[in-house]
Amino acid sequence: MGGDHGPTVVVPGAEIAARRRPDTQFLLFGDESVLGPLVSALPHLERAAKIIHTDVAIRMDDKPSQALRYGRRHSSMWLAIDAVRQGNADVAVSAGNTGALMAMAKICLKMQHGIDRPAIAGIWPTLRSESIVLDLGASIGADAAHLVDMAVMGAAMARIVFGHERPTVGLLNVGVEEMKGVEEVREAGRLLRELNTSDFEYHGFVEGDDLGRGTVDVVVTEGFAGNIALKTAEGTARQMGEYLRAAMRRTWRAQLGYLLARAAFRVVSEKVDPRKVNGGVLLGLNGLVVKSHGGTDAEGFASAIDIGYDVARHELVSRIAEAIGKSEIALPDIVADRAVS
Amino acid sequence: MGGDHGPTVVVPGAEIAARRRPDTQFLLFGDESVLGPLVSALPHLERAAKIIHTDVAIRMDDKPSQALRYGRRHSSMWLAIDAVRQGNADVAVSAGNTGALMAMAKICLKMQHGIDRPAIAGIWPTLRSESIVLDLGASIGADAAHLVDMAVMGAAMARIVFGHERPTVGLLNVGVEEMKGVEEVREAGRLLRELNTSDFEYHGFVEGDDLGRGTVDVVVTEGFAGNIALKTAEGTARQMGEYLRAAMRRTWRAQLGYLLARAAFRVVSEKVDPRKVNGGVLLGLNGLVVKSHGGTDAEGFASAIDIGYDVARHELVSRIAEAIGKSEIALPDIVADRAVS
Repeated sequence: MGGDHGPTVVVPGAEIAARRRPDTQFLLFGDESVLGPLVSALPHLERAAKIIHTDVAIRMDDKPSQALRYGRRHSSMWLAIDAVRQGNADVAVSAGNTGALMAMAKICLKMQHGIDRPAIAGIWPTLRSESIVLDLGASIGADAAHLVDMAVMGAAMARIVFGHERPTVGLLNVGVEEMKGVEEVREAGRLLRELNTSDFEYHGFVEGDDLGRGTVDVVVTEGFAGNIALKTAEGTARQMGEYLRAAMRRTWRAQLGYLLARAAFRVVSEKVDPRKVNGGVLLGLNGLVVKSHGGTDAEGFASAIDIGYDVARHELVSRIAEAIGKSEIALPDIVADRAVS
Repeated sequence: MGGDHGPTVVVPGAEIAARRRPDTQFLLFGDESVLGPLVSALPHLERAAKIIHTDVAIRMDDKPSQALRYGRRHSSMWLAIDAVRQGNADVAVSAGNTGALMAMAKICLKMQHGIDRPAIAGIWPTLRSESIVLDLGASIGADAAHLVDMAVMGAAMARIVFGHERPTVGLLNVGVEEMKGVEEVREAGRLLRELNTSDFEYHGFVEGDDLGRGTVDVVVTEGFAGNIALKTAEGTARQMGEYLRAAMRRTWRAQLGYLLARAAFRVVSEKVDPRKVNGGVLLGLNGLVVKSHGGTDAEGFASAIDIGYDVARHELVSRIAEAIGKSEIALPDIVADRAVS
């Protein structure tokens, strides 16, 4: 029921995903009188979907505390997450209120053993191909141990999504020299060198422009800076697009040139199409939840389902549990610090 | 002597600036045997420049502490800043080692009364026109009082550079709702509402995508996030440019279209040309220092001189002193907190 457009985007999005992967089963949580007619018009989804009715839907602008008050145990958002907890679903996908989704996911699924805080991991298009960037805003601030956890979790996701045996991991910082940046990031860098795992290769610090360059497969950062980097990149891409559109309308030569090169322009806009990389995976919980952009369309929502399908199929939660277990053996100090704090 | 290319960029850059503003006088600090021949070939600069010889130049990769050890009182960088302190220069412009420049500027010029930490303010091209963004990396972390100081300083610069009587100021955050983000940013928001000055209009929180949109004239953020936002935007612009270039080479239709629309493409690349907005102004010191990008060319270095000319001509340091004085009267608690800390 969530997102800026509700079921009119979510349900057709599920249809696209059902067509692409016919082995997917869908549980749709929400108002049956709205969902029913939408689903019955969509052949692939109708075969694969079951509607679980609830009257309660989380509003987009409510604070997490408000949402929990009226939405716990009853709302479509809660029920979708709870289906993951109960093992009835492998992943919950929502375009709804981000704060409420994170709060409910944390309460309902609880943190995985050895992880203190969740992170949102997203796919970032790069000049080389794609990277995983986390945290895009699940929590504000991160100590060294959380940054190390994110490196481990992001690498586990990269092995699944990109199929790299030993993905490269970088820490986002304001310079590449070892003495640069905040103490938490420098300490995380030292720990990651010490960890020296076969699961990923720690590259060192990366800077903001390394995101688009694709210098590493996984970029780890604290959620405040990560969220600002994500939105700055989205804004800059939109700004460049606007400049181009305006310039191509200015003269008849430009207009003609635009017509001739239209296919090339289409290639570029597909490369930076935010719908293709839609879907932030909540990492660190005992179950998988994917957050779709609230303003996306059916194609974008289908991408969020696709990424959920991939991480569920390859059992990301178990992969993370194994990797975190290995890192705890390699870095016993982190475990000790956690026990104290 | 600084920057990736040293005097071969700095000196021709000064020539461009001297041609544009014939009332400028230049003091060039560095190795006379290198600078002399370069200057004598440039007619506008030769009339306006005096060379002050020193053998010592700060290396680009030294830590600030190292640079201070061998460069204090003797290096070209120190002497340029000291000329500002002594009143022999109105502004120092350098393409050299950023950390060393900031450290020397702080030691030599000292902080202005009522300001705890410096900030680097840069010009950001937007869909509306241009904004000022600070801090781009002078200091890491910022408490509420420093964020308020940056709002006051950035607004003083916006009045000079953009000529707006009452510029709008926003705080960069991960959401626009009042309860979002870190406590320092929320507290700064409360203080800025309370300040309610005629010098600028406090708009509220802005997000990463508001930077390119130009939602406000001045965007205030802590230096870690600001530096990452800046480099992410630069990287994204470069990435989009690469995508376009590759796409326009793919087919003969696209190549022909590109040729026809070449003027339009040029308009776009000029709009996002980093050389045009080169030059970060160090704010909060008893004197003006401008940091040019180390990798820029002569045109870019001339832009850094231009921005230095503007802020010097309109006495930015005095304007900031007045504005900070007014804010201290309006927000006595900040002054009290500072006295305690």
